[in-house]
Amino acid sequence: MNKIDNIFFNAHHSPIGAFASFTLGSIGAKGGFGLELGRPAEHDVYIGLETENGDKFEALPFYEITNQEDESARYDVEHDDDSQPKWQSIAISPFDFGAVRREFDASRDSWRAGDLEFSIYSPVLPVPDPESSSEESLKNAIIPAVLVELTVDNSKGARARRAYFGFQAGEPKLPLRVISDDASGFRGLAQAASVAVVTDDSKCALGQAFSLDSALAGSKDGDSLFGLGEAGAVVVTAKAGEKRTWRFAVCFHRAGIVTTGLEASYYYTRFFPNLTSVASYALAHFDELKNAWRGFDADLRKSALSDNQKFMIAHSTRSYYGSTQMLDYDNKALWVVNEGEYRMINTFDLTVDQLFFEMEMNSWTVRNELDLFSKRYSYVDQVYFPGKPDELYNGGISFTHDMGVANQFTPASRSSYELPRLTGCFSYMTHEELVNWLCCALVYGERDFEWLTAQKELLTQCFESVLARDNPNPDARTGIMKLDSSFCSGGAEITTYDSLDASLGQSRGNVYLAGKCWAVYIGIERAFEKLGLSDLSKQAAAQARLCENSLIGAVKADGELPAIIGEDVDARIIPVIEGLIFPPLMGVADAVKIDGSHGDFVKTLKTHTERILRSGVCLFPDGGWKLSSTSGNSWLSKIYLCQYIARAILNIDGSHVTEDADAAHVAWLLDDENTYWCWSDQMVRGKAKGSRYYPRGVTSFLWLTESR
Amino acid sequence: MNKIDNIFFNAHHSPIGAFASFTLGSIGAKGGFGLELGRPAEHDVYIGLETENGDKFEALPFYEITNQEDESARYDVEHDDDSQPKWQSIAISPFDFGAVRREFDASRDSWRAGDLEFSIYSPVLPVPDPESSSEESLKNAIIPAVLVELTVDNSKGARARRAYFGFQAGEPKLPLRVISDDASGFRGLAQAASVAVVTDDSKCALGQAFSLDSALAGSKDGDSLFGLGEAGAVVVTAKAGEKRTWRFAVCFHRAGIVTTGLEASYYYTRFFPNLTSVASYALAHFDELKNAWRGFDADLRKSALSDNQKFMIAHSTRSYYGSTQMLDYDNKALWVVNEGEYRMINTFDLTVDQLFFEMEMNSWTVRNELDLFSKRYSYVDQVYFPGKPDELYNGGISFTHDMGVANQFTPASRSSYELPRLTGCFSYMTHEELVNWLCCALVYGERDFEWLTAQKELLTQCFESVLARDNPNPDARTGIMKLDSSFCSGGAEITTYDSLDASLGQSRGNVYLAGKCWAVYIGIERAFEKLGLSDLSKQAAAQARLCENSLIGAVKADGELPAIIGEDVDARIIPVIEGLIFPPLMGVADAVKIDGSHGDFVKTLKTHTERILRSGVCLFPDGGWKLSSTSGNSWLSKIYLCQYIARAILNIDGSHVTEDADAAHVAWLLDDENTYWCWSDQMVRGKAKGSRYYPRGVTSFLWLTESR
Repeated sequence: MNKIDNIFFNAHHSPIGAFASFTLGSIGAKGGFGLELGRPAEHDVYIGLETENGDKFEALPFYEITNQEDESARYDVEHDDDSQPKWQSIAISPFDFGAVRREFDASRDSWRAGDLEFSIYSPVLPVPDPESSSEESLKNAIIPAVLVELTVDNSKGARARRAYFGFQAGEPKLPLRVISDDASGFRGLAQAASVAVVTDDSKCALGQAFSLDSALAGSKDGDSLFGLGEAGAVVVTAKAGEKRTWRFAVCFHRAGIVTTGLEASYYYTRFFPNLTSVASYALAHFDELKNAWRGFDADLRKSALSDNQKFMIAHSTRSYYGSTQMLDYDNKALWVVNEGEYRMINTFDLTVDQLFFEMEMNSWTVRNELDLFSKRYSYVDQVYFPGKPDELYNGGISFTHDMGVANQFTPASRSSYELPRLTGCFSYMTHEELVNWLCCALVYGERDFEWLTAQKELLTQCFESVLARDNPNPDARTGIMKLDSSFCSGGAEITTYDSLDASLGQSRGNVYLAGKCWAVYIGIERAFEKLGLSDLSKQAAAQARLCENSLIGAVKADGELPAIIGEDVDARIIPVIEGLIFPPLMGVADAVKIDGSHGDFVKTLKTHTERILRSGVCLFPDGGWKLSSTSGNSWLSKIYLCQYIARAILNIDGSHVTEDADAAHVAWLLDDENTYWCWSDQMVRGKAKGSRYYPRGVTSFLWLTESR
Repeated sequence: MNKIDNIFFNAHHSPIGAFASFTLGSIGAKGGFGLELGRPAEHDVYIGLETENGDKFEALPFYEITNQEDESARYDVEHDDDSQPKWQSIAISPFDFGAVRREFDASRDSWRAGDLEFSIYSPVLPVPDPESSSEESLKNAIIPAVLVELTVDNSKGARARRAYFGFQAGEPKLPLRVISDDASGFRGLAQAASVAVVTDDSKCALGQAFSLDSALAGSKDGDSLFGLGEAGAVVVTAKAGEKRTWRFAVCFHRAGIVTTGLEASYYYTRFFPNLTSVASYALAHFDELKNAWRGFDADLRKSALSDNQKFMIAHSTRSYYGSTQMLDYDNKALWVVNEGEYRMINTFDLTVDQLFFEMEMNSWTVRNELDLFSKRYSYVDQVYFPGKPDELYNGGISFTHDMGVANQFTPASRSSYELPRLTGCFSYMTHEELVNWLCCALVYGERDFEWLTAQKELLTQCFESVLARDNPNPDARTGIMKLDSSFCSGGAEITTYDSLDASLGQSRGNVYLAGKCWAVYIGIERAFEKLGLSDLSKQAAAQARLCENSLIGAVKADGELPAIIGEDVDARIIPVIEGLIFPPLMGVADAVKIDGSHGDFVKTLKTHTERILRSGVCLFPDGGWKLSSTSGNSWLSKIYLCQYIARAILNIDGSHVTEDADAAHVAWLLDDENTYWCWSDQMVRGKAKGSRYYPRGVTSFLWLTESR
């Protein structure tokens, strides 16, 4: 990938399913080894090389560069500076920022400065279905470690030079400890039982002290270990004239039960009982792992995508993996994607956007999520028309917004997010999540008929539930949601766009949700047919027609669709086209063809989209996509999805769809105010204000399918 | 106990052996539920009562009293305040600080304000030897919970009033969750699997929200649970005309392996697998536990000690328990006292001061510590004279300073603290810890002859090791340490007084260490005799004489002893008398009698002490004790010990020994700059600069024995 403008941005470097990240890239103590965090760990990360003349070390700037406070003062409370022998020290300064180069792929991230190169390898590959795969293949996918190569080019050097890789925790600081294993020959530094940096160079020296300079000075002739030291580094030596690459592994581990509500452990603990086993395996299988993890990047590099597109795919994929958590519950795998900074468990309106990536990589995870939603996180409600919360009609089944938060699974049928009596953020997403379950189920079911067959009853219930929210009177149905869940207790349902205004935030009459609902009718028509439920199939087909006719009928004279049907919300939104993504994946590709059976509807959406993609409506001044004409809050995950739909389904071309937009979106991500948070979703006029450190951006994966 | 001047000081309220503390008392978010911390957790702790007219709540001031930031803004990123329904809210203000009363004992701490009373009960009782005690008695001692009574006097109230007890974690904030158990009937709020606040009032309402005011407003008519809420409270209601007391338990738990190096779990997990089991038991056995835990205070109250003395006994005992950690290793108990803010494991020079308390409460813990030191944390060195580090002589066995830090056990024979090539803080304490092992072993062994007999060989090695440090040439011995350990690599050994100047910091020639070494000779003379090693016994007796004669011979014309013998350090120190504490506990009470067999030595120490206890030498201007005439750093644990020795052994009287000194020491502890840290040891001119949140102050326990 080519050089990007601002190379000092944080990125996730994460194992799969360990809810762990070696986050790195922003200047300062902004990265580090994070376990189960909704933000970077804020460790000092130490990576440096002795200069040729040996007068000092030069370092990548991933630590607090100001002078360190002297931790020893907390123990030695009275002495002034002169009464004690000085701690040994050595000068360390950051490389000139301008002299640092970075190469950034999905599975490899590499910095070069002077004679030092530091590369992190992290996995991008399918997680095999644990019910039908070998231990070996699972280990390679979910080992809770990332790999590091540190290369020193001392080929022109006349003297040996030391290089190091180490760290110091943020607040509260904690002492490090030595970790080593004679059998497998690794050595390194760990913190408690949770994090370790290890190498297979048995000749490395370990330095540990209150500060890195003391650790480096002390370890000149071998290990120098001060057990109270919170700073430490693994120090290797390049001989005069030598160019050499060292292998490291950054290992994560958390044993035992890690969640409440459902008491689960990490799946990897089946194979890796502790840090030592992770370290041994990672170093012993270094090449095998690295090669397995690099395949996705080979495809990415071969593709015809632009550098900006490749950058966003790589970046968003990393942040997805940083939120993944493969648990072992009731002796089976339980797949979790945590919701970035919010740490909500399997937020369903994210699942539906991560669907495309997961279907390609490991479709069993989709089944796994759907099954837990239907078994534990579903509920049955009643519904009411706006303003009449006391006139209740039968509702039906739906699914919770999430399964809990911060490793705490909520009780059955309860999300951590949804509250009654609201009309905005934190209200119920009953219709949204019902539609999302159906979208996911119909896409997954298209590939797994046995599973689909098992859902026959549930699909029927879901369909009836969607109908109930259209109108209790069958004759009055329009294919559009009109009733809110009784759980709202007088409030109103919202969509996933919870922090936007009514143009996208309100569920009732919303064309975004209507578009996805249309897709459900299209898909379920086919599913019911296949399941031998032809009456229901016909009813679904009729609902699809009602829905598209309602939308077509709502088009204004200028050819644009309002955001909300039947209420006075005259905004314009891009996501009305979101639904178009699904029919082809549900086995009904024809439905989204402009000359297909639903061509008028598709044409309507195309015209709408072409018209609103103009500055002042649904384009920001910088060319970035503005999901709603009336909100400054635009979400990159959804933009990526809609860019794909515009191009691949609606055949809308132009630099405003791709090059100009991508340039603006990359500029958002690399804005200095945003780079701390790796990949973020919610951008308010280009600033990451919410949904930061976020998994949802893997909608960008769809772009890769365009160039196939 | 009477009123003390500044009632807003933090104190530990801790289970025994759980390394946990419900720290409370300082104004602001300075306390909370801490697990394995070297400082308070900094939670908001919510305790309050609705006013009689119901217009607001009044609260104890243990939370951040400024307006709370609105956490919802992190989710709902664009809306300005008016576009969203307001979260429900209700006014909360702190009680007038001057209207709050506090009663402070060792096992009960109680605040009263208006019609509210809030009392915490925590255990002070012997932990029975787990190898010979019932599960029941162990449970009562080590259940990881403290008990709370919340009383509302609404006897004059005409309407029902709500009261609450709850909390919010500090950074990083984490959502709470409901914890309840139908079988035992408790309900409450928990955070992950580690902390819970529960009550047995099944009619309580649980409130959870982004802030307490929302939680209280929402829970007016029953549970109001927002799963993302980081603030929460258990809300109870006092009827009109009712005075009622509610029972709560604050429960701590950490399952699984919690340490590295030696992989151990908490002993309590044998009986309590999770928070639920802790909560059930605590509430079901509330009275039984409370009564068992209050016995110590009954003795304390009956004693003739002053209020200041009682206060310091209570306060220091609490901080001791907050650092205790009873582990389960290799299927046996492993007793740990962590070193306060530093979290070092079983720092041996603290063990020797905690000895008196542990011998009284649970002497098996002393055996347990000694055995782990001898089995794993001993080493053999060589020794050298000052300035001649290359001329090495046989040294002998000694023991490490500690067993690790921050739940990380160090490898065998290694401390986390000791480093080579130093002459001050972090140097080796070889002679100090050798003497400490012997002091502890001879005191414990006096009560357990079977154990003492098993130490025969080791006692001999230790004795030889002490001799080797006196002089390799037997004829040149003086009973005083003259050689440093080869592990110092050219540096010099230090004593426990690591941050003081040479007057107490240096080991070689130090009269503090000489005094303890004398006690070892006295005690081992008897032990060897009992073990049938009469030659060694005689040699020990001779060494005791050499030692005391050296000290007597060093006395200046004014009757005062210099701090260091044989080197030019002319300071005066109080701790030369520390050794006198041991002979009576080793079965040789006669040795410290002024008319006994070592009367001249005792007289010498008495004269020395009487003389130096004057302002400008070893008294601070405020009357506090100054351990060294040349250092402003004075340690309360050691002061307590020396006060006891001065009174009970040397019969030195006067208000400067007791009343005036105690008043100064209490003033130090209650200084606003110090109160955050509960009980602290190292006071530099009255300010807690190091060794804060510290266990060592239980030397105060000795005072209780004076009044028996």
